[in-house]
Amino acid sequence: MSKVFSIYNTLTRKKETFKPIIPGHAGMYVCGPTVYGEAHLGHARPAVTFDLLFRYLQHLNYKVRYVRNITDVGHLVNDADQGEDKIEKKARLENLEPMEVVQHYTISFHKNMEQLNALPPSIEPRATGHIMEQIDVVQKILDNGFAYESGGSVYFDVEKYAQAHDYGKLSGRKLEDMLENTRELAGQSEKRSQADFALWKKADASVLMQWKSPWSQGVPGWHLECTAMSTKYLGEKFDIHGGGSDLKFPHHEAEIAQSVGAHNHESVNYWMHNNLITINGQKMGKSLGNFITLNELFSGNHELLTQAFSPMTVRFFILQAHYRSTLDFSNEALQAAEKGLDRLMKGYNLLEKLPHAEQSTVGVDNLIGEVWDAMNDDLNSPVALAHLFEAVKWINGINDGHQTITKSDCETLHQFMKTFIFDVLGLKEEAAEESSNDKLDEVIELLLSVRQEAKAAKNYALADQIRDQLKALGIVVKDKKDGFEWEIAE
Amino acid sequence: MSKVFSIYNTLTRKKETFKPIIPGHAGMYVCGPTVYGEAHLGHARPAVTFDLLFRYLQHLNYKVRYVRNITDVGHLVNDADQGEDKIEKKARLENLEPMEVVQHYTISFHKNMEQLNALPPSIEPRATGHIMEQIDVVQKILDNGFAYESGGSVYFDVEKYAQAHDYGKLSGRKLEDMLENTRELAGQSEKRSQADFALWKKADASVLMQWKSPWSQGVPGWHLECTAMSTKYLGEKFDIHGGGSDLKFPHHEAEIAQSVGAHNHESVNYWMHNNLITINGQKMGKSLGNFITLNELFSGNHELLTQAFSPMTVRFFILQAHYRSTLDFSNEALQAAEKGLDRLMKGYNLLEKLPHAEQSTVGVDNLIGEVWDAMNDDLNSPVALAHLFEAVKWINGINDGHQTITKSDCETLHQFMKTFIFDVLGLKEEAAEESSNDKLDEVIELLLSVRQEAKAAKNYALADQIRDQLKALGIVVKDKKDGFEWEIAE
Repeated sequence: MSKVFSIYNTLTRKKETFKPIIPGHAGMYVCGPTVYGEAHLGHARPAVTFDLLFRYLQHLNYKVRYVRNITDVGHLVNDADQGEDKIEKKARLENLEPMEVVQHYTISFHKNMEQLNALPPSIEPRATGHIMEQIDVVQKILDNGFAYESGGSVYFDVEKYAQAHDYGKLSGRKLEDMLENTRELAGQSEKRSQADFALWKKADASVLMQWKSPWSQGVPGWHLECTAMSTKYLGEKFDIHGGGSDLKFPHHEAEIAQSVGAHNHESVNYWMHNNLITINGQKMGKSLGNFITLNELFSGNHELLTQAFSPMTVRFFILQAHYRSTLDFSNEALQAAEKGLDRLMKGYNLLEKLPHAEQSTVGVDNLIGEVWDAMNDDLNSPVALAHLFEAVKWINGINDGHQTITKSDCETLHQFMKTFIFDVLGLKEEAAEESSNDKLDEVIELLLSVRQEAKAAKNYALADQIRDQLKALGIVVKDKKDGFEWEIAE
Repeated sequence: MSKVFSIYNTLTRKKETFKPIIPGHAGMYVCGPTVYGEAHLGHARPAVTFDLLFRYLQHLNYKVRYVRNITDVGHLVNDADQGEDKIEKKARLENLEPMEVVQHYTISFHKNMEQLNALPPSIEPRATGHIMEQIDVVQKILDNGFAYESGGSVYFDVEKYAQAHDYGKLSGRKLEDMLENTRELAGQSEKRSQADFALWKKADASVLMQWKSPWSQGVPGWHLECTAMSTKYLGEKFDIHGGGSDLKFPHHEAEIAQSVGAHNHESVNYWMHNNLITINGQKMGKSLGNFITLNELFSGNHELLTQAFSPMTVRFFILQAHYRSTLDFSNEALQAAEKGLDRLMKGYNLLEKLPHAEQSTVGVDNLIGEVWDAMNDDLNSPVALAHLFEAVKWINGINDGHQTITKSDCETLHQFMKTFIFDVLGLKEEAAEESSNDKLDEVIELLLSVRQEAKAAKNYALADQIRDQLKALGIVVKDKKDGFEWEIAE
C-alpha cells in the first residue's frame, strides 16, 4: 500500500502516481449531462465517482478546478452524426424553445446532484455558450490539415490523422475494424470515410438552434464542445479527464484526436472512466422497461422498486463498489445498502457515548492508515468501507463491553470517521426531516393525552408539570372546556 | 375596479390594459443579477415583484415565457463605460478564473431565490453565452448608421439617434442635461459625445475575458446583452420588460435605443419597474455600512438586525408594499411583517376547523372579487392583502362565535385563500423545519421522564402504555439498568 495517490489511467491501462502539472493544483474535466430528460441511474454513478475524486483531491490539499459541462446542443439522437439534436427534438415535442427544455432539465439535474450531496463543479460551461471557441478549434484543425469542409459541414479526417497518430488508443479499437463495422448511412456521403466525425454540421432552415460560421449556418459536432471548453478553462494541457466508460468511444477518442489536431499534442494526463450500471443484470434502456430516473428511485415510484430509496442510500450503494467495476442495481442490493448505511451511521453516532478505558483492544491508527491506503489506491472506496465497518464492529463491541478503547484513541477514531464519512465520502445524516414535523405533532399529542389522563385522575401536579415543561420547550398548551389546544411558539 | 389586468407602463406613465402580442401567451424579460457578490436586499425586491407577475400571469392562464439573464461579463465597476469588469475584478482579488466567480455567486443567487420561493425563469441566458448574438446586434446598429467604430471599440451615436428618436423617453431625461451633467473622463476621448455608450470595448491583453469581433479583441458593452438575449428568446417585439427603477437610465434607455438602432422599431410593449428599497430611510450602499445580504437577513447576522428573519417574512414584507412605492427596511418593519404573516397563516389554518352555520354574516364572494380587482390593478398586493386580513378577522370572529359562515362559503373562502396565498403570492408554510428534529428529541425526552416517574411511582400500566404508544409511532424505547435508550425506527 502506498502513501501517494495513484489513479488508473485508461489510456495507459496502468495505475500511475498522480503528479499534477502545477504542484498543489489539480484540474479536472468531467463530461456532464445532455439536458433533455430527467437524470437517471446512469448519471448518478459518474456524479458520485467524480465527486469522490473532487472531495479526495481537496482532502489531499489540492486546489482543484473541477469543470463539468452542460451539453445543450450538438448531441444528436443516435449519438453519431445523424438525426435530430436531442434537446431540439424534446423542444419540438413539447412545443418549447430549446432553452426552456435546457433550463427545466438543468434545474432538475442540479436538484438531483444536491440530493446526492455531489458538490457543484467549480465551473459549469455550456456548449451553446462556447460556439465561438468551438469554431476556433475547428479552424485550427482545418489549418493543421486534419479536417476538411464538405457541403458546408466540416469533418475530422480520421484516416489522415491515423497515418501519424494512434486513433483508437483510448478505447482500444482499431481503425480497420471501425471501417468494416460502420454501416453506410444515408446523408453520410459527404464524408470521405465512414470513420470521420463531424466538427461542424450545416443546418437547414428548419433547425431551431444554429449559428453562423465560416462554413455555414450550423451547429458544432458533439465531441467538439469538450475540447473547446476544457482548453478554455483548464488549458491545452490539464491533469484529469473523467466520464462514463460508454464515452470512451467515440466521444473521448474524438477529443484526443481534436486536441492533437488543434494543438499538436494531447491535452489530458489521466483519463478516468467509471464503469456502467446494470439493472438486474441487464443494460439499462428505455426500450427495456428498466430505465429508472433518480426521482423514481428517491420516491419508490417504479415497478422494479418495492420502496423509496434515499439519495444517501443510492450514494452509499455506488460507493460500495469500486468505480471501475460494473455495478448491478436491484431492489435487494439497494435494501442491503440501506441497512449498511444505517449500521455505519449508528456506529458513528455511538462513538460519542462510548466508555473509555485505560487500554485499547482495537488498533485505531492502523485501521485509519488502511482506509487512506485504499483511497490512495485508485479511490478504492469498497476496501475503505470494509475497514470502516471493521471500526463499526469495534464500536459495537466497546459499547457491549467486549472491547475497550482509550479516550485518546476514541477521539482519534471519531475525528477520522467524521472527516472520512462526511467530507470525503460525502455522506450525510438523513434524519427523517420531512416526517419529523409529523412525528413531533404525534408525540406532543401523546404526551398531552397522558396529561389529560393525569388530570382525569386528579393528578394536577403531573398535569401542571407537563404543561410547564412543554412551555419551556416553546410548546404552549391552552386548556379548553372540551380538551386543549397547543401550538409551537416561535 | 376592473376585471382586466392592467399594468403601469413606465414608458407611457399610464396604467394600460395588458394585451399580449400572441393571445394566451405572455413574454417577459427581467434584468437579472451581475454575479460578483452575494444577493442582497436590492435583489430581493425585483425577484419577488416579477415572480408575483409571473405567477399572476400564469394564474390568468397565460402561457408565460419568463427570461431573466445572468450578467457574467460587461458590467463595469462604475456602471458606465469605465473601469474594470465587476466579475473580473472579483476574480483577480480571489485569484480565480472569472467563471469560478460566476459559478459561485450564481449558485448562491439561485439558493436565495429558492428560499424566497421565487420560481426559476423559463430561460436564464448568460451574457458570455451570447457573444455572437451581441456582435450581430452591434453590426446591425452600425449598418443602420447609429453607431461608429473608434479605436477598435464601437459606440452608440446618441446625438445622431436623438435627431430622429426620443433618447430619454423612458427615464424622462433630456439629452441636453445629460451632456451638461456628464463629466469628461480620461479615456473617453474616443467617444464623439459624452452621452454615447459602448456597444463593444476593445480589451488590452491583460483583460481575462475577451472575444474576437470584427472590430477588436474585446468585450460587449453592458447594455447590449439584454437586447441580444431578449430578441433571441422573445423576438424583436415582446410584451413586458421589467427591472429595478435604478436601471431605467442608462441601462433600459440604452436598450430602447439599441432595439430601434438594430431593428428600426422598439421591442417592448410594457416597461415595468419596481421601486427601490431604503434602509432606515437611507439608500443602501456598501460605503454606508447598511448593506444587508439576504443570507445576513435570513441568519440575523448583521448589526442592524436584532434577529433572523425568515425568507417568507422578507417576501411578505415586500408584498405588503406596492412594487412602485419605495419600501423602507427596518428591523421593526420586518418584525411587524413577521407578525402579520403569522396572523395570516394562523387564520388560514383555522379555516378547516371553523364551525358552519345556516347563514353567513360575512360576504365571501365580494371579498374575493376585491382581492382579484386589486391584483388586476397593476398588481396591487398591499390592497389585496388588506382584504385578505379582513378575511382573517372574519375567521377569528367565526372561531370565537361572533360571526357565522355557511359550509359552502367556508369552502369557497378556503379554496380562494389557498390559491391566492400559495400560488399567486407565492408564500409557503415555514414550519420550523430545522429545529423540529431537536424539538422532537426534547419532547420525547420529556415524555420518557414522565414515564420514569410513573415507573418510580409503580404505575407500570402508564409506563407500559407510553412505551407501547411511542412504539406505534416508530419510537422504540429500551429500558436499561440505569435508565433508558430510545431511537426512532425507520
